[in-house]
Amino acid sequence: MTATPPLSLGHMRLDAVLDGLARGDTAALARAISLVENQRDGFERVLAALHRKIGKGSTHRIGITGPPGAGKSTLTEQLVRAYRERGLKVAVIAVDPTSPFTGGALLGDRIRMESVSLDPGVFIRSMATRGAQGGLATTTEEVADVLEAFGFDRILIETVGVGQTELDVAATAETTVLVLVPESGDGIQTLKAGVMEIAELFVINKSDRPGAEKLRQEIEVMLGIRKGNAFAHITPHHGAAKGGGGRRGEAAATANSWEHLVLTTVASKGEGISQLVAALDRHHDYLASSGKLEERRKRRLAARTRAVVNRAIRQWVWDETEAEDLVAQRLDDVAAGTRSPYDVAAEVLDKVRNGK
Amino acid sequence: MTATPPLSLGHMRLDAVLDGLARGDTAALARAISLVENQRDGFERVLAALHRKIGKGSTHRIGITGPPGAGKSTLTEQLVRAYRERGLKVAVIAVDPTSPFTGGALLGDRIRMESVSLDPGVFIRSMATRGAQGGLATTTEEVADVLEAFGFDRILIETVGVGQTELDVAATAETTVLVLVPESGDGIQTLKAGVMEIAELFVINKSDRPGAEKLRQEIEVMLGIRKGNAFAHITPHHGAAKGGGGRRGEAAATANSWEHLVLTTVASKGEGISQLVAALDRHHDYLASSGKLEERRKRRLAARTRAVVNRAIRQWVWDETEAEDLVAQRLDDVAAGTRSPYDVAAEVLDKVRNGK
Repeated sequence: MTATPPLSLGHMRLDAVLDGLARGDTAALARAISLVENQRDGFERVLAALHRKIGKGSTHRIGITGPPGAGKSTLTEQLVRAYRERGLKVAVIAVDPTSPFTGGALLGDRIRMESVSLDPGVFIRSMATRGAQGGLATTTEEVADVLEAFGFDRILIETVGVGQTELDVAATAETTVLVLVPESGDGIQTLKAGVMEIAELFVINKSDRPGAEKLRQEIEVMLGIRKGNAFAHITPHHGAAKGGGGRRGEAAATANSWEHLVLTTVASKGEGISQLVAALDRHHDYLASSGKLEERRKRRLAARTRAVVNRAIRQWVWDETEAEDLVAQRLDDVAAGTRSPYDVAAEVLDKVRNGK
Repeated sequence: MTATPPLSLGHMRLDAVLDGLARGDTAALARAISLVENQRDGFERVLAALHRKIGKGSTHRIGITGPPGAGKSTLTEQLVRAYRERGLKVAVIAVDPTSPFTGGALLGDRIRMESVSLDPGVFIRSMATRGAQGGLATTTEEVADVLEAFGFDRILIETVGVGQTELDVAATAETTVLVLVPESGDGIQTLKAGVMEIAELFVINKSDRPGAEKLRQEIEVMLGIRKGNAFAHITPHHGAAKGGGGRRGEAAATANSWEHLVLTTVASKGEGISQLVAALDRHHDYLASSGKLEERRKRRLAARTRAVVNRAIRQWVWDETEAEDLVAQRLDDVAAGTRSPYDVAAEVLDKVRNGK
């Protein structure tokens, strides 16, 4: 075991948070998440302590992404209800849009979800996209770790927009659902290639509007799924059964390949939700029985470890070395054109390497 | 003057690129951009050498952003034509969507722009969003620096999507245009707050479709622009003339405040383009005469210097210290739960601080 970072919060308070988490105290959960989200002193200690409790495969992290107006919030709310009916504990991380200038988040859609938020088996947390570039996916994953360690069975990670940051966030989930609406048809050709590849499940929501079937066909053509009876697509295509040994029934036992699914829903009326829940379960079973769950977990942990190293190094450079002062002193020269940002970077690096 | 990083490419080749740039050689330009985009050895040397040639205020960097399908490419092409008719040299940086998994870019829309790309006064470059989180805005800005140093009068930076990364890219421009279509009305309430704040000009493209006027009103309400004659919004609101001394006529000389403009275009027919060009010029003049151009430039340079320092530190840590080996050795423990990513980060930081 290597040394963990020193604790500025004091052992008592952090230990109280950890004890509270172990007891299932919701107040401790909210406090732990705030620590992690805001990277307060000691947050890494909390995450390090929780690390051994997670990755057991019993929690399913589900990413829900798609363009604004696709009805992701309503769909998420319906999934929460469906899981609650089965007695599962559900957490929602809603990654909300934020201004890079003001730091404020638009929380409009969240209000609707308050109806389910009074249920103690449901935990809803909105996260703002901070100015810190590239950090949001890591922070989201860390908050999900806290929720998993606390014992949630399903963690729904809902993002707004289809930009690179949102994709990075969605990619932290085990199953990613892309939610579209019939009107998305016009834009489907220009959808980010990454979005199509990242999603294992496609949902055409508001499918009682015109154009749903056309969009389904377009998606299927893009994905290279053979055409046929619309309902055929609700069942995943099974490859030849090589392995077996799945945990929860035939679909999982025989699934050695996963073919993307296109489902239709009318989330506002609850239509198509049970099929979506079933498809999500099948995808998780497929991941588990094929060994891809563990493979994916290891890949994510490797990426996370690198991200955590980068963050620790960055904090050290700006908080504990002369970098900040040096950059501040050089800015006038940079603006005047007599030094470039690259000259300044070389100077900072030189000092940091020499332990200043 | 501080030391610049050592040159691995050899002085001759880098000097040849710099000489070529100084002579206005387009082949040298393409090579310099490739160096910078791919962060090949010596790219920082090229950027450092060009640094003193830029920021003179004669080049206008214009960001063009908006949802997929809004017609940004067509609008960009029309702007290129309009600037060429005035004899201005125009560069386009098209920041294209990329899969985080395959690294491939969707270049469909670019093909149309080939009609203008045969003109030697036009330079078009597509940039892919790489896996490197947070780096795209910096790289885009660096490519724009090369183009500015080469002597382009207008640099159009077109992004796809309205995610955080795209916003960061758009924010590197001096003027940001948000392109919407009448159908965007449904989603306007859920548009990222950051998008509305980042844009100085709003364009409702395809405004011959139903809903354009309604969308304009919605935007104006969101922006808090008082209602009135639609054409009134084509002229920026001028605050009380305090300063004066603008460079290009009355609008610039008297503009001490800028009120967001909402313009309508039908880019495919060239409608509204001359008004957009005029509004862009007025915004640049306003920035210059109000001192905000210099203020903004300094703020960007400070942010850039920090980003360049972070990149240099990251490269040093992963390429020249034991970090990579150490992380690789620890991954099995991390997956087994016996060490956390935070333990590994603390260990790496400890080694880096001690110069290993």
